[in-house]
Order: sequence, then C-alpha cells, then structure tokens
Amino acid sequence: MSFESLSSGKRIVVIGGVGAGLSAASKARKLRSDIEILVFEKSGHISYGACGLPYLISDLIKSPEDLVSHDSKFFKEERDINVFLFHEVVAIYPAKQSVLVKNLQTGAENEYQYDKLVITTGARIFVPQIKGIEIKGIFTIKTLQDGIEIKDFIRKNVPKRALIVGAGHIGLEIAEALIIAGMDVTIVARGPDILGTMDEEITKIVEEGLVRNNVMLLKSTSVREFISKNGYVRKAILENSESINADIVIVCSGMRPNSEIAKEAGIEIDHTGAINVNQRMETNVPGIYSAGDCAMAYHQILKRQVYIPLGTTAIKQGKVAGENMVGGNASFKGIVGTDILKVFDLEVARTGLSGIDAQIEGFNFISNVVEQSSRAHYYPGGCKIRIKLIAEVNTGRILGAEMVGKEGISKRIDVFATAIAAKMTVEDIGDLDLSYAPPFAPVWDPILIAANDLKKKINEVK
Amino acid sequence: MSFESLSSGKRIVVIGGVGAGLSAASKARKLRSDIEILVFEKSGHISYGACGLPYLISDLIKSPEDLVSHDSKFFKEERDINVFLFHEVVAIYPAKQSVLVKNLQTGAENEYQYDKLVITTGARIFVPQIKGIEIKGIFTIKTLQDGIEIKDFIRKNVPKRALIVGAGHIGLEIAEALIIAGMDVTIVARGPDILGTMDEEITKIVEEGLVRNNVMLLKSTSVREFISKNGYVRKAILENSESINADIVIVCSGMRPNSEIAKEAGIEIDHTGAINVNQRMETNVPGIYSAGDCAMAYHQILKRQVYIPLGTTAIKQGKVAGENMVGGNASFKGIVGTDILKVFDLEVARTGLSGIDAQIEGFNFISNVVEQSSRAHYYPGGCKIRIKLIAEVNTGRILGAEMVGKEGISKRIDVFATAIAAKMTVEDIGDLDLSYAPPFAPVWDPILIAANDLKKKINEVK
Repeated sequence: MSFESLSSGKRIVVIGGVGAGLSAASKARKLRSDIEILVFEKSGHISYGACGLPYLISDLIKSPEDLVSHDSKFFKEERDINVFLFHEVVAIYPAKQSVLVKNLQTGAENEYQYDKLVITTGARIFVPQIKGIEIKGIFTIKTLQDGIEIKDFIRKNVPKRALIVGAGHIGLEIAEALIIAGMDVTIVARGPDILGTMDEEITKIVEEGLVRNNVMLLKSTSVREFISKNGYVRKAILENSESINADIVIVCSGMRPNSEIAKEAGIEIDHTGAINVNQRMETNVPGIYSAGDCAMAYHQILKRQVYIPLGTTAIKQGKVAGENMVGGNASFKGIVGTDILKVFDLEVARTGLSGIDAQIEGFNFISNVVEQSSRAHYYPGGCKIRIKLIAEVNTGRILGAEMVGKEGISKRIDVFATAIAAKMTVEDIGDLDLSYAPPFAPVWDPILIAANDLKKKINEVK
Repeated sequence: MSFESLSSGKRIVVIGGVGAGLSAASKARKLRSDIEILVFEKSGHISYGACGLPYLISDLIKSPEDLVSHDSKFFKEERDINVFLFHEVVAIYPAKQSVLVKNLQTGAENEYQYDKLVITTGARIFVPQIKGIEIKGIFTIKTLQDGIEIKDFIRKNVPKRALIVGAGHIGLEIAEALIIAGMDVTIVARGPDILGTMDEEITKIVEEGLVRNNVMLLKSTSVREFISKNGYVRKAILENSESINADIVIVCSGMRPNSEIAKEAGIEIDHTGAINVNQRMETNVPGIYSAGDCAMAYHQILKRQVYIPLGTTAIKQGKVAGENMVGGNASFKGIVGTDILKVFDLEVARTGLSGIDAQIEGFNFISNVVEQSSRAHYYPGGCKIRIKLIAEVNTGRILGAEMVGKEGISKRIDVFATAIAAKMTVEDIGDLDLSYAPPFAPVWDPILIAANDLKKKINEVK
C-alpha cells in the first residue's frame, strides 16, 4: 500500500465528530503522522454512542458522559486530531478546496482550506408538519444533546403519559425506555406495520410483546395536531379526531440525511437525500468523501447503493474514507442489511431482505417460518425462537432471515449475515457445523432446522 | 432423487438407538413408507440427550426421563420403526447379510436378515488400567444408564469428595455438576493441559475459573491405584504417591469407538479404532453404513476423515446414512471442529484448528489474541471476551477460532464456524455486517476487531 497522494503538511478536514467522522480521522492518523487533521462538530459532544440514548432516557445509564468514549482532549493528546466543538460547517467550496465554518459560541465565521474533505454530517429525525409540533415537551431523538434535553425534561416535569410518533427501531426502544421510566406509553404508527419492511410473522410477536408490557400501539393513523396547556404539550389529536393525553412526545418517524451543505456545494445526492458515494466512499467531487448516516451504503444482495443509516456501517465507512484520503486503496465491502434491537424481553433481528423487500425487488423467492427452542428441550430457561427465512427459488441462495425470541437471537442472526456475505445456499447452511451444548442450543440448532426445512420446500416447488 | 435401490418390503437394520441410529431410521422412514426398519438397542434407553448427563447429575434436571425425547412406543406408532430394547447385536455376517442379536433379558439369540445395515454403536469412555478400577463408586459417564447409576449412588451414599479422571470437555462439565451437588472436587489430568488441543491463552482462563469455583486441578499426573474401604472407593494414590480422598470417582478420560463387532465382521477400522466411512457414510462393505460416535467424520479444513465424536455430527451423519440406505444420494459435508461447553460462569468454545492443531498439521499459520467487551462499553452487565484467531499466512484464510467469556461466546463462535465453511479470509470476516445494539455487542464486534487485528499482523509479516 502506498500513501503518496497527500504530501507532508497537508490537511484533512472532517465535518462531524461522531462515529464515521472520528473513525475516518483516526484511521488517517494511524496511517500518516505528518498531516494535519481538523474535525468540526457543531454540537458540544463528540465520540458518543448514539445507540445508547434509549438507555440514558430509561436511566439504566445514569450520566450522558457514560455514553462518551473519548473527549476532545483525548483526540488532541493521543491522536493529534484537532476537534472544534460548537463549530458548524455552513458551506463547502469545492473550487477553492475550503469550508466556511461558523463558531456557534462567538458567531465568527472562518474559512479553512482542505486537501481532502470528508462529510460525516449524520442524519436527523424527519419531523412531520404537524400543527403544534413546536410546543414544549415535543422532542426528536438522535444526538446526545437530544438525550440530555429529554432526560432533563423528564426530571423536571415528571411526565406521566408519553406519546411516541413512529414504530421503527428507535420508536420501540424509546417505548421501552419510557415504560421503565414509569410512564404510560402510546405509539402512533402511520402505516399498518411496525419495524419498517420486517415481515408480519415476526412483527406480530413484537406487537404482542408491546401489549404484554402495557404499550398502547395505534397503527394506520397519525397525529393531526398537538394541543398545549400552559405552554407545554398536553394532548395529541389523531386523524380520526381521537384525542390522546400526552405530557411528553418523542418523534421517531424515520431518518433524513443531513446533506444540505453537500447539495449546495454541487455534490450528487440520491433521491433519498443521502450523499452518493462509491465503495471507496468518494463523492462525485474529487477530494471529497462521505461516510455514515448522511451517505449511501453499498448493499451486497441488491448490488447497488441504498440508504440504511446504522452505526456499524458508519464506522466501517469512515475507516475506508480515512484510509483512502491519505492515498490508500480501501473499499467498503457493503452491508447485507443486518439490524437487531431489544424490546422489553424480546430480541428482534433481521439480515438481508425480508419477504416484503424481496417482493419489491422482484426476486423469485420462497420463505418459511419455523419455531424452535433456544436450548436443549430438557435444559431449563430456554424459549421459543421464531425464524423466517427467505431464499431464491432457482439457486437456493439465502436472501434474508428474520428472528424473534427472548434469547439466542443475536447469536443466530450473525450466522445468517455471514452466510449471506458468503453467498451460501440453504443447503450450505443446513450442513453447518454449529456449536452445540444443552445450555446454548438444541442438537439441531434452529438455524439448521430452518435451512433444511426451506431446502425441502424449494425441492418441492422446483 | 430416486429411491430405487431398496424394493418394497426390504429391511433396514440399525444397531444402536441413540442420536445417529434414530436419525438414520427416521430419515429412511420419511423417504420410504414401504420398507421395514428394525433398531436394536442393548440398553433400556433410546433417544436421549447424552449431553444432558452432567445436568442430570447436578440435579438441575430432576429425572432421567426428562432427557428422553421419544420412547419406543412413539417410534412404533408414529414412525413405524421397531425398536428392540435390551437387544445386543453380537455379530455381523456381511456374507449372509444378517446380524446375530442377543436378547439380554432372556439370553436368547436370533439372526436377523438385513438389506441395508447401519452401525451406530457409539463410543465409550476409555478406562485406564488402574489397580482398583473395579471398586464400587468408580464410574464412567457416557450412557443414560451411567447417569442413572451415578445419580442413584450420590442419593444413597452422599459422597463428599469427588475425583474426576480427565480434564476434557466432559470432565469439566462433570466437575461443575459435582460442585453444584455439594462435593469437594479434584480433577486429575494426565497431561500439562486441559481441554485437548485447545490453546493455553484460552485454557488458562478456564483453569482460573475452576480455581475460582473451588475445583482442585492436578495436572501432569495420573492415578496409580484406587483404595477401597468396606467395598467402596475411599482414596486414590497418584503416580507421585500423593493420596487423595474420594468417595466417588468419575472417569472421563477420552472416548473410544464401539467398533469391535464391525472389526470382527471385516469392516475397515481407522487407527483411532473408529469405523472408516466415506462422505456417503458407507463403510468398505457394500450395504453397510456407519454414523455417529463409532465412525470417522470428514474434516473440511484437513480434507480427511478424523475421529471427533460429537452429538451434532452423529445426527447429521445418521440422516445422510438413512437417506443413502434407501437409495438417496446424500453427502455428509463434514465438520470444521466446532465445540462449546459451559463450565460454571464461563462459556468456552472452539471451531476449526487451534494453534496446536495447526502446528501439528504443518500449516504456515499466524495467530492473535484479543480481549474485548461483549456489549457496548456503557451498557451494564457485559464482560470481557477473549478470542484467539488462527489463519493461514499466505492466503489469510481463517483456520480456527477459540473463545472464552461469561457471555456472548456461543453467538460468536458460530460466525467463525460459518466463515470457515465458506473458506473466508480474515479480511472477509473483518468486513462482515454483524448485528449491533448496545445490549448485544459493541459497535465494533469482538469478531471484527479480532479479524482486523490479525489482518494487520498478516500484512506486517508478508
């Protein structure tokens, strides 16, 4: 590997100081000690685990600082990376190879030259145009600052009734957090389904779990208006004019990439709003890279770039961008669409395409659903695991897997994620030499049973 | 698939009614309803989970019946499979296509014709020639009958001090069981290591776990003589003349295939004593198959047959034998050497080759050891996971992985088992899209860190 493209003393600028940005900066520094690295972060926080925010709100995690891995001082002293907090990049000038940066504390604006630039501006929650959306007590949840403000609001105002807008991954995690925090919780979901394109054989188990834990789930409806009392949110009026009391509202209705400054600079944007990149994490503008929640991600099954913002993708993409900015030749191998969440006592996971996805994408697919024990039948403490498997009819290649259960899900979904990356067929999976001991699995692991069952089904239709 | 080789009314004979045998019988029946299937089992028990025996002894599992999946009546009524309990096959006559069967309750011997035969006689614990080995209170542990007798002995005699001979997988599980049952436990291991060829970076953590749980481990020694008192074992004298008090002894010193009747019938036996088979589970004698703990198993990395008796292998091999006996064309894809056990609060697992194995086999290999968190650093309840990874230097192909930790091991070892089956390199593994949520993993999963670290190490030596 050669790192010749950036001569000594040159400068890398990173816009955004969370997962992708700091991953890029750190990788670049590891490979090259002789360049300057500047990170501009508009908030007062860097290097935190945004995925931990639900646990901050539930008070399982006491302090916002617990979510932070390293502070600016660490990056300066240990990695010679200059982090500027409360500095917002307000414009990118590709022709001049510079960015315009506003110091949010002083209001001063300064232009900084760059030799290579990486845009890791992340995403924000999409906020629907609802009357009263600006009322106090209505929040979105994406940044550490959001988490701090929500936790603070709960402490000061002790809300009793919570409304969550959106029944995706974050909405469900927040529902659990607010139930633990002692509130009555209602989720309002626009569509008839929860958890995006996850299939109903799995989501109905999750819905039952929500009910069991006293979450009220209202589907196929939306909020028309929020009503305040004494300046604070008090209730929501739904499309059907039903009224729901709420002292706190968390909007979790999908993510939108923060790509405005990129777009204004002439950088190509996908119809999802995310920044177009190749597998080297290069945008269409030479010298400008992007990574993380503001950027597209290559999907190994679909063989094209998609917008699925996730923390694991962000840090991998950041690392690739960091290496390539200093002249490396790294490639982001892509995602397969793996996701997992804990909702109360359930583990819910997916990888690859769901049945809904496979249908949309026009695959000739077949699927099955099996329910098997997580442990040997005689070993105490096990539970039922439900697996839905999706495979291509002609080739037997596995396209996706979805799972739900009280334990043993995170173990198993990664086997399918690995199998998808390796382009395995259901037959290959059915023959895997997986680990077995009574506390961990039945002698025929649910994975093997699911795969062999689907293999049989494929043979019958072929 | 055609199933022409066996015409209607023909007979399959199965020797042994545990995992492999019943898996073969059931598969054959699923494919063909018009043949006769006889299973001869010398003990009074069939279809039980032998891997659950330690938990029967610890009393976590109360009754031997809990370990049984199905009884003879079930096999007769639901699957039309005739199981003969207390019937020992004492000879195989390949030329006559018959077996000589002794009814152990009446002493009567009968000859039964077969059209296809499968030998699934399992294995037994190797019993060293120690003076006094026949004394009451000294047991081996392999069959359900062994478990019943040990549990019965403990109930009646309330032993206080236990001695375990052998520090392999079973020896350690039994150590935990006897500690839970309230005894003082000493393990005597012949060699300087525990857990076979597992590497010391992992086994030393396990040894620390044994000490933490009050198990006395004596390595590089063996028992010279057992001493009795009133007809029951009272102490063991070691090679160095040290004496250890023991009211119960469990011998767990390695497995030996039950292949004697096969050998006498002229069936080819490996130097390990196991029955030679091909991937169709055929022996060298036409019409005679073998599967399970008495047979060899194809190893995907070593590309040859090896003797590693495990329950998961047994049922897969049995299924292949069952299919092929009725004219199918199934192939046992092979093992990669996956194994897992729980020892007190530790999960210990391996797949593929250890460093010791790779050295013996002459691979040009490289390895690393990493220690990482099982969950996001801020999420409570996580623990350290130690991973040793072994890869081929020239190709980067992963040869093996070993792991130990208090949680999250069974999840992760199967990713490596899958990666080995798919012939993945450390680079492939480092790019996997594995599941991430704070309760289940850090954003960089320990698997990804281990693989990327070893990739770096390989690049440095290349």
